[in-house]
Amino acid sequence: MAEAPAISPKEEVPEPSFRTEVAVRFEDCDPAGIVFYPRFLVMFNNLVEDWWREGLKFSFNELVLKSRWGIPTVHLEVDFYRPSTLGDVLSANLYVHSLGRSSVKARIVLAGSDGEVRVKGNVVLVLMDLGEGRAIPFPDWLRERIQAFVKE
Amino acid sequence: MAEAPAISPKEEVPEPSFRTEVAVRFEDCDPAGIVFYPRFLVMFNNLVEDWWREGLKFSFNELVLKSRWGIPTVHLEVDFYRPSTLGDVLSANLYVHSLGRSSVKARIVLAGSDGEVRVKGNVVLVLMDLGEGRAIPFPDWLRERIQAFVKE
Amino acid sequence: MAEAPAISPKEEVPEPSFRTEVAVRFEDCDPAGIVFYPRFLVMFNNLVEDWWREGLKFSFNELVLKSRWGIPTVHLEVDFYRPSTLGDVLSANLYVHSLGRSSVKARIVLAGSDGEVRVKGNVVLVLMDLGEGRAIPFPDWLRERIQAFVKE
Amino acid sequence: MAEAPAISPKEEVPEPSFRTEVAVRFEDCDPAGIVFYPRFLVMFNNLVEDWWREGLKFSFNELVLKSRWGIPTVHLEVDFYRPSTLGDVLSANLYVHSLGRSSVKARIVLAGSDGEVRVKGNVVLVLMDLGEGRAIPFPDWLRERIQAFVKE
Repeated sequence: MAEAPAISPKEEVPEPSFRTEVAVRFEDCDPAGIVFYPRFLVMFNNLVEDWWREGLKFSFNELVLKSRWGIPTVHLEVDFYRPSTLGDVLSANLYVHSLGRSSVKARIVLAGSDGEVRVKGNVVLVLMDLGEGRAIPFPDWLRERIQAFVKE
Repeated sequence: MAEAPAISPKEEVPEPSFRTEVAVRFEDCDPAGIVFYPRFLVMFNNLVEDWWREGLKFSFNELVLKSRWGIPTVHLEVDFYRPSTLGDVLSANLYVHSLGRSSVKARIVLAGSDGEVRVKGNVVLVLMDLGEGRAIPFPDWLRERIQAFVKE
Repeated sequence: MAEAPAISPKEEVPEPSFRTEVAVRFEDCDPAGIVFYPRFLVMFNNLVEDWWREGLKFSFNELVLKSRWGIPTVHLEVDFYRPSTLGDVLSANLYVHSLGRSSVKARIVLAGSDGEVRVKGNVVLVLMDLGEGRAIPFPDWLRERIQAFVKE
Repeated sequence: MAEAPAISPKEEVPEPSFRTEVAVRFEDCDPAGIVFYPRFLVMFNNLVEDWWREGLKFSFNELVLKSRWGIPTVHLEVDFYRPSTLGDVLSANLYVHSLGRSSVKARIVLAGSDGEVRVKGNVVLVLMDLGEGRAIPFPDWLRERIQAFVKE
């Protein structure tokens, strides 16, 4: 692990599985004038939520309130390369890269409007039955929808 | 990476560098009735904040508002082993394990009242000058205070 | 004050000074499956923030970070008529109705997609100099921009 | 309504029905270095939550998750007299002043360590059956417990 904060990669952000835009709001920022880092995880969660609703056509309302399932994050790794400040507009990019029996792995990249990577993370999500409190396999119809977003 | 969510270790939580207690509140919980995971990162941040104020005797008020320094998290790894629910009281345990020129690494363990590990994370924090936007070395007096909390 | 929660008015929501759309997200909802009420105040704040950026052409970044001014809410009255749930899309309507030397009063109405009023509030905002910690008069150029949004 | 922000009363804060202490944390503060006002409503909610658990001996876990009832805020009035900043320790004072068939009214005062009033609010809370989505009368055992906290 480096002494200094990591250098932000100037690489091109490749075409994601799913993309949204996120404005950095007053509510996201701390007394240092930059995004309070747990708010980046809310942005991660919002990106996944938008992907389920718009991409998978199975909203969190249907998932959680109707089906009583959940898709909790069980593992998370994040690098915060450069701060983001009030008024920045970030692209939020989701790369679905592995689909298991009941889990899915994805990479998330938040980038500035100039393409500069600000935050990069890996998440592992697991489908859970909330009533029974245990992982369940993706039903076939959902597996097929997720598979369509997997980037090799 | 496992298919199923990781099994929560029943290990003994060792004596930490610094410990607080956290009640899981209504504001922390989501429609699934469990902690919304970005709120765990707020708990991480609160633990670090309490350590600076009570352990290092240098509060975030003095750090951020008076000195115009910050101690952002630049790297984060977290495993979420088991859900926590409304009313749970967790112990929040900080293990400071490495001190660099301008960065400090720590492990954070949130455990249930029965000692069961719920969330385990590693964080890398870096001292920054907010005005100049770059990492700065810990001054000697602060380095000495942090060193006193390092667990081998 | 009534014993029972107020009946939601089925009235027509009139043309506002400024309007946005707000999706009720997972992060907004509590273990009862409905919006945690402090999140409605975040929606109020976001509406005012959007009005300043898009309507007044003076963003919170310019206001707070560059000018070191703020526009805190000093008074608030809110009626919560009916709950809103995960996935609802609300219209957020701002009615600017009074402009003083350093304060502005506005009404805010959040309504469901069927026009049903969910939340109705009155806010008083005051322009502050953050450094001096006191109210300051709106400069003429800003007063003129605000005046253009006042609804009689 | 005054032009300028209200003057903070230097009055003595009277003995409340229930009191807690709240530290203003990094997560509560905005880029102006002061508490982001929706966070004060979270403090209000936390105060009510603590009163139910410690005062009424009926926790929100029992209320919401076990009984599937809720106690939403249906009306709110708040005056924000003076800002609070990172590291302030506030007293949170609850004055229960009226108990109806299914509603309870309370006043909430947040004060600085010098007794200076920072935030003053009135809230109306209603007992709801979450499944049926309607107000229900307080059961006798709960009414008696609440009655014991009413201040004339």
